[in-house]
Amino acid sequence: MPYDELLNDAELIADPTLGDKVLDALADTAGRRPARHSGAVPARPYIYVGNGLPAELRTPRLRWFHSSFAGNDAVLRDFPAGALLTRTVGRMNERIAQYVLGWLLADAQYVPEYLARHAAAEWHCVPGDLVAGRLALVYGTGRIGAAVGALLQRVGIRTVGVARRPRPTAGFDDTATAQEADALLPRAAWVVNVLPLTPATAGFFASDRFSAMRGALFVNVGRGATADTSALASALHAGTVRRAILDVLPAEPAPPDAPAWHLPHTVLTSHSAGVTTPEDVIQDFAACWSALRSGRRPELAVDVGRGY
Amino acid sequence: MPYDELLNDAELIADPTLGDKVLDALADTAGRRPARHSGAVPARPYIYVGNGLPAELRTPRLRWFHSSFAGNDAVLRDFPAGALLTRTVGRMNERIAQYVLGWLLADAQYVPEYLARHAAAEWHCVPGDLVAGRLALVYGTGRIGAAVGALLQRVGIRTVGVARRPRPTAGFDDTATAQEADALLPRAAWVVNVLPLTPATAGFFASDRFSAMRGALFVNVGRGATADTSALASALHAGTVRRAILDVLPAEPAPPDAPAWHLPHTVLTSHSAGVTTPEDVIQDFAACWSALRSGRRPELAVDVGRGY
Repeated sequence: MPYDELLNDAELIADPTLGDKVLDALADTAGRRPARHSGAVPARPYIYVGNGLPAELRTPRLRWFHSSFAGNDAVLRDFPAGALLTRTVGRMNERIAQYVLGWLLADAQYVPEYLARHAAAEWHCVPGDLVAGRLALVYGTGRIGAAVGALLQRVGIRTVGVARRPRPTAGFDDTATAQEADALLPRAAWVVNVLPLTPATAGFFASDRFSAMRGALFVNVGRGATADTSALASALHAGTVRRAILDVLPAEPAPPDAPAWHLPHTVLTSHSAGVTTPEDVIQDFAACWSALRSGRRPELAVDVGRGY
Repeated sequence: MPYDELLNDAELIADPTLGDKVLDALADTAGRRPARHSGAVPARPYIYVGNGLPAELRTPRLRWFHSSFAGNDAVLRDFPAGALLTRTVGRMNERIAQYVLGWLLADAQYVPEYLARHAAAEWHCVPGDLVAGRLALVYGTGRIGAAVGALLQRVGIRTVGVARRPRPTAGFDDTATAQEADALLPRAAWVVNVLPLTPATAGFFASDRFSAMRGALFVNVGRGATADTSALASALHAGTVRRAILDVLPAEPAPPDAPAWHLPHTVLTSHSAGVTTPEDVIQDFAACWSALRSGRRPELAVDVGRGY
């Protein structure tokens, strides 16, 4: 079906958790009032906007699902054939990049250590480590990875982006395959994981990679299941990973008795790095709508087969 | 005395705390072996290199004191008339700039809060605050202030430098007098103090300025006595200052029972932001020596009358 026809005669249904302000904005964009999903499944073709795709809406009449999230691996299972999937990115690239730089610099300035010293009223001068010229390996060179690389470059960090098919990419001083990057792991001050979860990336960071590091800070802003938590635990104990900042875990949210809270030298940040706001959903839905209206594939469309 | 003659026939004396490596390097530069200061005062003219100027060396025979420190307010009292004072800056600009950006971003990413939540095994998503486009007031537009401004600009922060005589300065989107900047205090997300201590700056940040802020983060990497600690305490209690990061205090080091440890929402960092390393002392002494040898005033000379 041509992209512009996809909008014709389709009902617009919205996640019931979306606020009135979002619904008003969706109505402005679409020229039709969205109905809040009640559990009922329309007999006509429909477009759905929401935080996830309810099972009952996975029918051949779904034409387009616009997700409020950037990562949609959970939606891809049983996604109706032929339907369009678009995602919300918003200022997420900027958010994740700032998260990564913030935690890198907090680590370099010994923020956790100074907070502990302050609590103990201990005056003890430990200068920060200068980051300029040191190496960050960034796994994932898509929009998010490139935004991370570009921000790290701005403070003088040397960035190597790791991709399946490396090619010159803004934000990276160099790009490498995973195999080439393995040789760089011992020299990396920081290893930043921005990988999506696909069959090829599940458990990508396992004991071989973690034990090849030499005191790197490991930051995971990709997907939790791309890193093997027990291999990470061993590496943190051995010191090949000096510290871990984990925004994501294989199972979220982590309950209070989850073992991840007891990993040494680790901070969990509750999947907060790359949130999307209601404004982001409104804007990105409008951008997708506008592309479809002019018969183009939206830039925010997800390749359902590839998985991202 | 012409600058180059200042080096002639002068003994070189070094702080006894400087290591052998530093002394070897000073000897290479000066073509004469430095003697470690024993308390004895030479009968001939002398040059001193060290962490401070001992009282007994403050004689008319002192020709030049090269300080290992960047801030030398303590040395200026009773500094021998006519003697040259030079300072060590090294990579201090870069260090202080990275310290400021690191703590700004750590605050924006809620690093202290996430560390506390992690310790409590509490999964609770609080996205970081984006810094781009928000306003930082940087008090002090000299080399250090400009380096701070330039680094903050690189992550998209809007910077206004505050100076006695504002003029266009790299690192700042704009410059302002202190009085002009007072009007900006309510809109500043960050107030960064890089002021040296002079009679004009003592107690510069007092209750008027602190109470004009509206939830700013206050960072002091200048001199402790340029901020009134009890006024800061009131502002932190009232919330006009949201959080304070204090690298410096009016009296250092702070003993365990110092009240500053009990300021709310505050972190002390033990005067670690702008350290100079032995390599910095060696390099900056050599740069001063070379300038003097060619009859020029070293760029690292301190205006003893002005105080910085």
